[in-house]
Amino acid sequence: MANKIKIKKALISVFDKTNILDIAKFLISQNIEIYSSGGTYKHLKENKIKVIEISKYTNSPEILDGRVKTLHPKIHAGILSKRNNKSHLKDLKKNNFEEIDLVIVNFYPFEKTLEITKNHQTIVENIDVGGPTMVRAAAKNYNDVTVITKQEQYIKLINELKNNKGRTSLNFRQKMSETAFSETAYYDALIFDYFNNKSKNKFPERKVIFGNLIEKLRYGENPHQEAAIYSKKKLNINQLNGKQLSYNNYNDIFSALLISKSLPKNQGTAIIKHANPCGVSVNKNDLKSYKLAFSCDPISAFGGIVSCNFKIKKKLALELNKHFFEVIIGNGLESEALKILKRKKNVRIIDASNLELIDLQNTVSNFNSLLVQSSDNKKFSKNDFKVVSKKKPNSKTMKNLIFTFNVCRFVKSNAIVLTNNDTTVGIGSGQPSRLDSCKIASNKALEFLPEKIIESIAASDAFFPFPDGIELLAELGVKAIIQPGGSINDKKIIEVANKAGLVMAFTNIRHFKH
Amino acid sequence: MANKIKIKKALISVFDKTNILDIAKFLISQNIEIYSSGGTYKHLKENKIKVIEISKYTNSPEILDGRVKTLHPKIHAGILSKRNNKSHLKDLKKNNFEEIDLVIVNFYPFEKTLEITKNHQTIVENIDVGGPTMVRAAAKNYNDVTVITKQEQYIKLINELKNNKGRTSLNFRQKMSETAFSETAYYDALIFDYFNNKSKNKFPERKVIFGNLIEKLRYGENPHQEAAIYSKKKLNINQLNGKQLSYNNYNDIFSALLISKSLPKNQGTAIIKHANPCGVSVNKNDLKSYKLAFSCDPISAFGGIVSCNFKIKKKLALELNKHFFEVIIGNGLESEALKILKRKKNVRIIDASNLELIDLQNTVSNFNSLLVQSSDNKKFSKNDFKVVSKKKPNSKTMKNLIFTFNVCRFVKSNAIVLTNNDTTVGIGSGQPSRLDSCKIASNKALEFLPEKIIESIAASDAFFPFPDGIELLAELGVKAIIQPGGSINDKKIIEVANKAGLVMAFTNIRHFKH
Repeated sequence: MANKIKIKKALISVFDKTNILDIAKFLISQNIEIYSSGGTYKHLKENKIKVIEISKYTNSPEILDGRVKTLHPKIHAGILSKRNNKSHLKDLKKNNFEEIDLVIVNFYPFEKTLEITKNHQTIVENIDVGGPTMVRAAAKNYNDVTVITKQEQYIKLINELKNNKGRTSLNFRQKMSETAFSETAYYDALIFDYFNNKSKNKFPERKVIFGNLIEKLRYGENPHQEAAIYSKKKLNINQLNGKQLSYNNYNDIFSALLISKSLPKNQGTAIIKHANPCGVSVNKNDLKSYKLAFSCDPISAFGGIVSCNFKIKKKLALELNKHFFEVIIGNGLESEALKILKRKKNVRIIDASNLELIDLQNTVSNFNSLLVQSSDNKKFSKNDFKVVSKKKPNSKTMKNLIFTFNVCRFVKSNAIVLTNNDTTVGIGSGQPSRLDSCKIASNKALEFLPEKIIESIAASDAFFPFPDGIELLAELGVKAIIQPGGSINDKKIIEVANKAGLVMAFTNIRHFKH
Repeated sequence: MANKIKIKKALISVFDKTNILDIAKFLISQNIEIYSSGGTYKHLKENKIKVIEISKYTNSPEILDGRVKTLHPKIHAGILSKRNNKSHLKDLKKNNFEEIDLVIVNFYPFEKTLEITKNHQTIVENIDVGGPTMVRAAAKNYNDVTVITKQEQYIKLINELKNNKGRTSLNFRQKMSETAFSETAYYDALIFDYFNNKSKNKFPERKVIFGNLIEKLRYGENPHQEAAIYSKKKLNINQLNGKQLSYNNYNDIFSALLISKSLPKNQGTAIIKHANPCGVSVNKNDLKSYKLAFSCDPISAFGGIVSCNFKIKKKLALELNKHFFEVIIGNGLESEALKILKRKKNVRIIDASNLELIDLQNTVSNFNSLLVQSSDNKKFSKNDFKVVSKKKPNSKTMKNLIFTFNVCRFVKSNAIVLTNNDTTVGIGSGQPSRLDSCKIASNKALEFLPEKIIESIAASDAFFPFPDGIELLAELGVKAIIQPGGSINDKKIIEVANKAGLVMAFTNIRHFKH
């Protein structure tokens, strides 16, 4: 029992008063004295709960519209004193201070305020100073003090006190302390992030990245890895059917959605496997859009992720059901379509219509490091590039070139993408050599859509170092190539393109992705 | 000038007293009154700087061994009062409180304490409560108060006061406030992380990830992306030569080092291109180790990253200089070798001998989400797998199987790796179809080392869904295959392996990587 500490005095200061009466009543029933201030004091008083006002206890008035209420030595010595330290006990006695054993605090709602207003004054006013101070003091002194910062903990506290005759165990206090520091760390991370965004300080000296647990996942990329998904704000993807999403599902879903969001609205389908697209198409007819995307690599599409940036309707649902996909994503789903898709119990169905593509930073961690970069959200338009070949593209070719270069942005480097009429016909990804990616893309096209490699369009995520890739593509019938340019061999490459009668466009923009 | 605020009273409370006398003397020269407590008060006093003790000002003694010094309404009202708010002014006057215009604070050294001790009591004692409270209060009230939390800011403050006749501008105060919240957010993230590690709570409800800026990078994966690298603790890679590391360099270096660290000590070479290995070898002879790794794909190695998990000596340096690499990493470098490598001015040379592979979590961010997982650090040994073929491996084959499966762990999925005698001879990476990865790996081998595909070993990061990949590899002369197993077609696959006289081992462990 040495570690168990009897609760005699509690301090309650909460902005969110949900269930606070229940816990207060319970504390009173345990003969625990309650101290409180401001709105919490009023609320308890009005509900006939015996409570001592902090300003009376400290003999120091609440001032500055409540900005200073609890920042008083009588409060903080009561929280911070070590019970087994004689000199601390003496200090308390001498100053007529008393021990506070329990602190129940939640903060001014900084995060909620951000959601409902852009008024800077209101936001700043919602930075809590007194609350975090009491919580940090109590959490530091968890050896003697219990700190409660979340409503879910009220029932735990009640059970703890019931099970231990009005005492709390060290183990309980330690857990509560850990959560308390999660609250203060998260709270100040939010504030820091707000100021960073305001000042457009993208790479401050300290980086603090934060999120709330969405769910613990069954495992990570592989079953021997543990994993979880967190999110800053809400993760606006709505699962309507199927098994729990896995780590790899999430990873592929995000890849799919990035492509979907980049395609012309209500026309684009992307099929993803292992975080790479294996079929992308744009077509005003939804069924065609899907069928064309599927045609690019029907074998790899097996078990893949389909993402439509349009509402999924009945006809498409029937078509989708002919094959096995792990995940189907729609920009909304008609109820009849959903019913049809649900016939397959396990298929994960996602409505992503609420998802917004925000301009965010990417982070990747390795060893102790965090690599942080702004996302590659550069969308390409016809004004951005230069035709370097003698042959000039007509407007349709121009449009196809832009589509092809855009898809290339989402394929892991080195990436070569072949398309025909706004549909991928061959994708070469993840190779150390660009020539190999050319071979893979064209072999894929020759395997499934050999007729469509004729007059096709090619995009490369980075420049061609040598003419060999160009030669290979030209021989197979590619008619236009889009690439960043910038190689020392550019002149030679343009010559080869001209000799083969190709259109060649330089973008001056690279799209590496790893 | 409306925004400029005259500094009359300053509060100084610093654990780290570096340069504090300079700034204090300057403040005195500007007729600013200084208030201080504890060690800072003593230090200023001893150095004959005019300073008012906080306990005298508040008429409240320092108690609990300094745990409670500044947590007093007279201090916090002085910091938090809005200068343009009449009722605030009235409150101050009535209580005989005075405005504090400048707060200079740094915290108890929680982070440094972690570095020098594992004593929990000492660590907890170094959680500062008073310091962060003053900083948060001042930062909240930046409209009227200046908060200084870092030594680098002292000179900035001096310049600001000099340029503005003893005043600070709103812009300056806002910047200082932003940094102040970075300090408190970072500080509590550290504390939370410490408690998390202690309780082995890997996936708490709130996740807070943090780091210090190592450097702003020229750009991200592509020139139109901004980027920076951060690190928790020190990033123990030491650049000895060459241009600034780029985002892609760092990314490749980490991939390279993860492989290097996984190979038998002082024998392994890995060559990386686009975050995938394009050559890996283990050999007791350092020169051979490198040459064999290079032989796997000499074309892709161009402009790649070489990582040796041994000390680089003269002979190897001469050999390395024959080709162009972006980065050369050694587990130390002999001084003569370094001199030779430095002949190429631009080549980035890294000494990674101080780097420790710590069991860390990986994080990847997308949209608003953070995918967090424990790293795939599963190292495979011969006890972990099951030979399922009739033909059994001898001990050398066994060793080679383990090497091959280990390399496979670092190749992006779907991954197929072919090796011969502890050297990769073909790597197939990043494909949506496993059969395609088989083709890519074997085509690579046929291109550069056709004789070595005979009697080679193959590894697959996940199970073969069909026998087709096995058949292809067997036809080319592969003699043993290691893979997780787990396909519904396993029986058929084992039959095919037996028919071809292959050794086949199941690992039951998968190594997806995306």
